[in-house]
Amino acid sequence: MKSTMQEVDLTIGSILQHGTVVHHDSEVVTATADGTRSQSYGGLGARAAQLANALRALGISGDDRVGTFQWNNAEHLEAYLAIPSMGAVLHTLNIRLFPEQLVYVANHAEDKVIIVDDSLVPLLAPQLAQMTTVNHVLVAGPDAAAADLDSLRASGKQVLIYDDLLAEQPTSFDWPEVDERSAAAMCYTSGTTGNPKGVVYSHRSAWLHSQAACTGNVAGLTFADRVLPIVPMFHANSWGLAYAALMSGASLCMPDRWLQAEPLTRFMNASLPTVSGAVPTIWNDVLLYLDQHPELAPKSLRLILCGGSAVPVSLQKALLDRHGLLVKQAWGMTETSPLASVSGEPLGVEGEEIWAYRGLQGRPLVGVQARIVADDGSVLPADGVSVGELEVRGPWVTATYYNSDDPEVAEKFDNGWLRTGDVGSLDRYHHISLSDRAKDVIKSGGEWISSVDLENALMGHPSVKEAAVIGIPDEKWQERPLAAVVLKEGASATPEELRNHLAESFAKWQLPDAFSFIPAVPRTSVGKFDKKVIRKQYNSGELLVDQP
Amino acid sequence: MKSTMQEVDLTIGSILQHGTVVHHDSEVVTATADGTRSQSYGGLGARAAQLANALRALGISGDDRVGTFQWNNAEHLEAYLAIPSMGAVLHTLNIRLFPEQLVYVANHAEDKVIIVDDSLVPLLAPQLAQMTTVNHVLVAGPDAAAADLDSLRASGKQVLIYDDLLAEQPTSFDWPEVDERSAAAMCYTSGTTGNPKGVVYSHRSAWLHSQAACTGNVAGLTFADRVLPIVPMFHANSWGLAYAALMSGASLCMPDRWLQAEPLTRFMNASLPTVSGAVPTIWNDVLLYLDQHPELAPKSLRLILCGGSAVPVSLQKALLDRHGLLVKQAWGMTETSPLASVSGEPLGVEGEEIWAYRGLQGRPLVGVQARIVADDGSVLPADGVSVGELEVRGPWVTATYYNSDDPEVAEKFDNGWLRTGDVGSLDRYHHISLSDRAKDVIKSGGEWISSVDLENALMGHPSVKEAAVIGIPDEKWQERPLAAVVLKEGASATPEELRNHLAESFAKWQLPDAFSFIPAVPRTSVGKFDKKVIRKQYNSGELLVDQP
Repeated sequence: MKSTMQEVDLTIGSILQHGTVVHHDSEVVTATADGTRSQSYGGLGARAAQLANALRALGISGDDRVGTFQWNNAEHLEAYLAIPSMGAVLHTLNIRLFPEQLVYVANHAEDKVIIVDDSLVPLLAPQLAQMTTVNHVLVAGPDAAAADLDSLRASGKQVLIYDDLLAEQPTSFDWPEVDERSAAAMCYTSGTTGNPKGVVYSHRSAWLHSQAACTGNVAGLTFADRVLPIVPMFHANSWGLAYAALMSGASLCMPDRWLQAEPLTRFMNASLPTVSGAVPTIWNDVLLYLDQHPELAPKSLRLILCGGSAVPVSLQKALLDRHGLLVKQAWGMTETSPLASVSGEPLGVEGEEIWAYRGLQGRPLVGVQARIVADDGSVLPADGVSVGELEVRGPWVTATYYNSDDPEVAEKFDNGWLRTGDVGSLDRYHHISLSDRAKDVIKSGGEWISSVDLENALMGHPSVKEAAVIGIPDEKWQERPLAAVVLKEGASATPEELRNHLAESFAKWQLPDAFSFIPAVPRTSVGKFDKKVIRKQYNSGELLVDQP
Repeated sequence: MKSTMQEVDLTIGSILQHGTVVHHDSEVVTATADGTRSQSYGGLGARAAQLANALRALGISGDDRVGTFQWNNAEHLEAYLAIPSMGAVLHTLNIRLFPEQLVYVANHAEDKVIIVDDSLVPLLAPQLAQMTTVNHVLVAGPDAAAADLDSLRASGKQVLIYDDLLAEQPTSFDWPEVDERSAAAMCYTSGTTGNPKGVVYSHRSAWLHSQAACTGNVAGLTFADRVLPIVPMFHANSWGLAYAALMSGASLCMPDRWLQAEPLTRFMNASLPTVSGAVPTIWNDVLLYLDQHPELAPKSLRLILCGGSAVPVSLQKALLDRHGLLVKQAWGMTETSPLASVSGEPLGVEGEEIWAYRGLQGRPLVGVQARIVADDGSVLPADGVSVGELEVRGPWVTATYYNSDDPEVAEKFDNGWLRTGDVGSLDRYHHISLSDRAKDVIKSGGEWISSVDLENALMGHPSVKEAAVIGIPDEKWQERPLAAVVLKEGASATPEELRNHLAESFAKWQLPDAFSFIPAVPRTSVGKFDKKVIRKQYNSGELLVDQP
């Protein structure tokens, strides 16, 4: 029996149309060096049409890829809307990739045009000549004319000023009908081995994922909200917040390059966001800053979405108790668009017990399914105890990588499910509890020790700023934990003291045998702890190790 | 360029799985004669599996239709979940249809099985023999065994007790993979002419529509909510609230047949809903009751969705000012699933000005597009002034009717858009402002007079309970308005007084020339004002007319 429903596709074009017409007086506010600049969504619609006209004039057609090398700002939002809506594919380039990775992804995606922020010209220019498919570079931002355009021109590409180019174009565009399953955007994920791998989002996946962000269990966005995506727009769709804002009519507050605690706090007090999203590191910095300046706590914020790595309960508690800021942990990855689950204690759970749930990665969003799979491929029960690899499935979860020749790609998928590489358990509510990355788990005497649990507990110690725990080879136990610890400025702690602190929550056999005090935890290009580097330092004898 | 996303369908099965596992301790509470009965969502999952097994055993396969003839209760929810999830099609029969219409729709849909509430047996039994495709009748509810089963058996159909049948079945079912574009449910809409016409919802349309109900701009449902759908589950999916509850984990409060103000208020105070949905008539009755018993105002309610007919501002104001109950007007029809727009004043609108917006039908939900079309087929500007027929488009809007042989069906659609039969305008935010049904507009001297605007203003008079305005033939002006007015019990008003009241908001030429005081406004089988009947009474001279 056929349904009688209309065949109407879920497209970015429909988000553009809705947001810029129905919510034409909502606004995008962008941080500047000394204040803010604003654009109404109505004006944004006109600018998106101008950008589409300009790109068409430069020869962009079909599913050509247009790269962006931009911070979170109004121009990047214009690209988010115009490029997929005209049928082309938005490729958000991660400005923090290592140079050779950046060149690799631009060439692999075959980007034809790159839009670059004026402030990022020096970072792009040295690699541009090697980006063989790129013909045009558009320099965006209020100071584009003052940027070092010659450094870009040295690549032989045609370099244009974004604002000048748009100014010549009509403010309407004949947006095409687009199939919802066609490519809308792509984002590369940089594993620790091999080349970065491309995830290609469809119009449908972006629509569904962003609508999920608008539901009550995630951010419950309304047109009265103001959303501050601190998570970069070059990271997995900035968690869907940009499109979600246009869908709900919420205004956007864009921090541009001002991500340090002090200017960020100033921007929050100027732009009055109600909802924000960022990785724990950012909130950790904001917390330290607010502890010094409690009068600057951004009172407009009703909700902080936090994810990208495990969100320590100590951080959540400190933000709530000391500054009235509510954190909700979200979990996902580039491959899951990324929002796949959000934390939240079940009904009836109160008092201190809530923290046992807020420290988890949360329950899957409707549409997303999660399961735990053992080494032998069997599906384990959702009993809160059985530990294995987390696998997920859903309409905004990737099924493969774009044109990858990496022989390991097949291993990332399990019969229609994405193998996340994360190890953990599900409880009977399907709360996801991740204990480690599969490759970071410490295998000691036949038991598994979670490096992440130890790190979280260490970061709950008042003297500890950051901690990374790795497994080091051990003759008797196969592996034993080593904790690499960064102390807060001016603070001190001995290995013995830290071991005693951990002994309150861990069994004796789980405690680290060795400690190393380091000045900073090495990070990957996307800002995650790079334990590979610590392991290398340990193996080469570079790491100063203290045994309590 | 192909996206790399997984092909995962949006299905009722995924809602069933999510709601009954991830939110297994949410509950459905059903009103009884003397209290409530409860079922956890976990238990609901088991019951849905038992129902699917039972229906399979009765021969239901493929896209066979299963009819429900039920109030809002736990058993109807089981049918909502099990029938589409097993691949069959849920046909919600409107218990208020006239007998011949009821027989027509059951035969037209070819229902094989009907599930009937114990309390509704007397209403179904007389028509059952004429329902030629029906083989089995399942009698549901705590008092099924005590129902007059013989009256059903007289039809020759096999009659079974629902609970007994389920009790024999396993509590798990091998739910099939279902194509999201296949039929999930159907609902007939009874026009004023011709046979009822069937709308067939797909899994996709139901999923998207219900997810929209969970977004912040509609009801922003979370798993901490408790949803009271007073709007019947046999009316256009009960506005998506049943599935939305399972998607968000919100609990459900089901009023069963206790829809009168007094038991309904008692049920609200017992089941503590946070969000409810019903037509204005219900809230009008509740208002009158609460005015007598202000201490019974349901304080748990944070939001009332109200629609089905225009929601008078006077009703919204009274509920808010006198009882702290916030009303949000929603607009839609069976053909739009139904949620298509919700009201809400733009940012910055405050004080008395908000009521100008809350009296409108609101802005389209993201995914739904609205436009105003003139008699000549041209699209009119969204300027708040141009009046024409409202047309809508979207993934949960119907494109046709099921197997209809009505020659007028083609006229209901306009090149991919649904012609709503409503007349109104769009402002620059695309706020829908409906002034009338196309067929009820009064055409006076070349100008249009809105019968609905006059009705709303009349119902704002303290003595008026209800009012219906029709056009009556006039030699000079073609048509002139006549107001049929129902006074509140014990209240009195003269035509002159009502005319003076209207003169505050209307031009003189728009005021009714004639008034008729009637005991009640005649209603259609779905409870809407039936102006056809008033016109007939006028034409036959039955109506007592007063001219001020």
